[in-house]
Amino acid sequence: MKAAILSFSGYDTPVIDLTHEVEPGNILHGAFHLFSALPHLPEGSVTLAVVDPGVGSSRMGLVAFWRGRFVVAPDNGLISMLSGPIKTWKLPPEGSSTSKTFHGRDVFAVCAAKIAVNPGWTSFLEELENPLLLELPETSRRGNLLFAHVLHVDNFGNCILSATSDDLKEFLPVSLATGSDSAEISLVAVESYYQSPETDSLLILPGSQGFYELALNGRSAAEYLGLLPGCCITLTGKRGSF
Amino acid sequence: MKAAILSFSGYDTPVIDLTHEVEPGNILHGAFHLFSALPHLPEGSVTLAVVDPGVGSSRMGLVAFWRGRFVVAPDNGLISMLSGPIKTWKLPPEGSSTSKTFHGRDVFAVCAAKIAVNPGWTSFLEELENPLLLELPETSRRGNLLFAHVLHVDNFGNCILSATSDDLKEFLPVSLATGSDSAEISLVAVESYYQSPETDSLLILPGSQGFYELALNGRSAAEYLGLLPGCCITLTGKRGSF
Amino acid sequence: MKAAILSFSGYDTPVIDLTHEVEPGNILHGAFHLFSALPHLPEGSVTLAVVDPGVGSSRMGLVAFWRGRFVVAPDNGLISMLSGPIKTWKLPPEGSSTSKTFHGRDVFAVCAAKIAVNPGWTSFLEELENPLLLELPETSRRGNLLFAHVLHVDNFGNCILSATSDDLKEFLPVSLATGSDSAEISLVAVESYYQSPETDSLLILPGSQGFYELALNGRSAAEYLGLLPGCCITLTGKRGSF
Repeated sequence: MKAAILSFSGYDTPVIDLTHEVEPGNILHGAFHLFSALPHLPEGSVTLAVVDPGVGSSRMGLVAFWRGRFVVAPDNGLISMLSGPIKTWKLPPEGSSTSKTFHGRDVFAVCAAKIAVNPGWTSFLEELENPLLLELPETSRRGNLLFAHVLHVDNFGNCILSATSDDLKEFLPVSLATGSDSAEISLVAVESYYQSPETDSLLILPGSQGFYELALNGRSAAEYLGLLPGCCITLTGKRGSF
Repeated sequence: MKAAILSFSGYDTPVIDLTHEVEPGNILHGAFHLFSALPHLPEGSVTLAVVDPGVGSSRMGLVAFWRGRFVVAPDNGLISMLSGPIKTWKLPPEGSSTSKTFHGRDVFAVCAAKIAVNPGWTSFLEELENPLLLELPETSRRGNLLFAHVLHVDNFGNCILSATSDDLKEFLPVSLATGSDSAEISLVAVESYYQSPETDSLLILPGSQGFYELALNGRSAAEYLGLLPGCCITLTGKRGSF
Repeated sequence: MKAAILSFSGYDTPVIDLTHEVEPGNILHGAFHLFSALPHLPEGSVTLAVVDPGVGSSRMGLVAFWRGRFVVAPDNGLISMLSGPIKTWKLPPEGSSTSKTFHGRDVFAVCAAKIAVNPGWTSFLEELENPLLLELPETSRRGNLLFAHVLHVDNFGNCILSATSDDLKEFLPVSLATGSDSAEISLVAVESYYQSPETDSLLILPGSQGFYELALNGRSAAEYLGLLPGCCITLTGKRGSF
């Protein structure tokens, strides 16, 4: 894909790898990474995002424009976590020389390079009215209970939850139950890793992507709790703040 | 290696990573990746390819020129899959300050940077008459049988076979036998993943590198069939086309 | 982190990945990689090195200047293996908008970009008198015994030892004992992999980072010997040279 970009755009287009660690075929996983990286990229940048279990089917490709940044991706829900105003266009139909199995290289990379060279290229595209958006599981609160799910397990085993500071307004988590086990596990709510009273405590703290996360100092919280992305959890809280 | 390139050539030489996933010491695996990426790179580009179990031995380094693109590599067969006209030169003998264990950094990266800065540098090199070429197992047809082998197993578990569209002219595969097992496994020949009648079918389809590949929708065909790179398979076919 | 760099510095700052394979939280492992790469990078380059188990604590960030190259890192010992003159400054205190869990992106990447754009930025920083340096285990010799430890196990399973050519002056290793086992294992001392008399011999040879390393042709010496980074070994030698 990088070779195809450089072949089209020449060497003046700097290319960086954001991640190659999205689980094969896991669109929600890719959506999370896109959501995490995009706000930090420069305005005018073009992000090529390909998690594409539907390659070869009739699903279309799209270009999205979100907060001044372009995304080129299959229209399969990868942009589902980008909230707020977003504009989308259809990618032109594939040429006949295109492979049926590697659209990332033959279709998406070439379009990304075209936009990098000339952002005005999108004005020739047809608008896409209803891009596919995946239904994200709801995060909700009922009394002293907060229902959330695991969005992502990072390299350190921290579990990034779907709960934001809005969800935790006047709610201080004190314990956790996982779907697989009704036992309540005590939680220590802290503002950063280093406020933990004991190093063995299971922590809940605000993470760097705007979500709260579960962590164990120096160990994998995901392994300890048996949690995977998509798992549902229930937090029990009391009135208070972090 | 990238540090060594930038130290020689300065910051105006853009550097991209093609892959770091070649199995340690597996020259054929590297040859496949080089073959897959090279046609997509810009003309005039320099590809540094190092899979080098013979580092420290008397094997030489080479520069190859193939369809307008340069390759710097050990002379150990890495260029074996580049078919058609190719020109090769010997790399100059190593200086005394060179390490005996990391020629990638101390020899090949520096030469690649020299060519990137000045492609004319190759005119000072001695021609290499007979670069080492690995004998690739033959792919052949006898009646309704086609003998091939697995070139590569990709990240999704698809098995890229040595068979090309020339090999499959008027030949529509209907079943497969692996070396380890004489049982015939039914195959569905399709033009893309999404033409599979049942999702559980083992598919054979044209892949993006010019070879046919075996695939299972959403699962690893390699694991299902117990196939590894190098394994031999026999396809049984009937007259027809994809 | 790369997104944050480009957002600050614009596209004229080339960014390369040195490694993403440092074991999570292992500062010594990161220190070894920094030590290995830094001398090969161009003068004036800025290396962003983040292995940061102390994120969110009161540990400070630093800028180091070593042989004409800048390093931006947490002040936690990552620079411990850079020997000789080094100048260090304190990074300015974090702004309030900074995450408590991802200083790599929010603090270090931004500072690295500032220095890349304007190296003179460091003149506004306060000097750091005593950066944290980890105590590295001593490598020492007593008679015909040399005590060393494993600095790093590379991708091929080679064990890079803490012993340098100074340590091995007039000392030719003939056998090895590991901490876990007092049995002596014969060693063949060679100048490069291809001087091994038998392919099954355990070799000791000068490596590409200035340290001696243990190797087995085509196999993992670390697995064969049960060695991990940090393990202590004892070499028995006789008078002689490689």
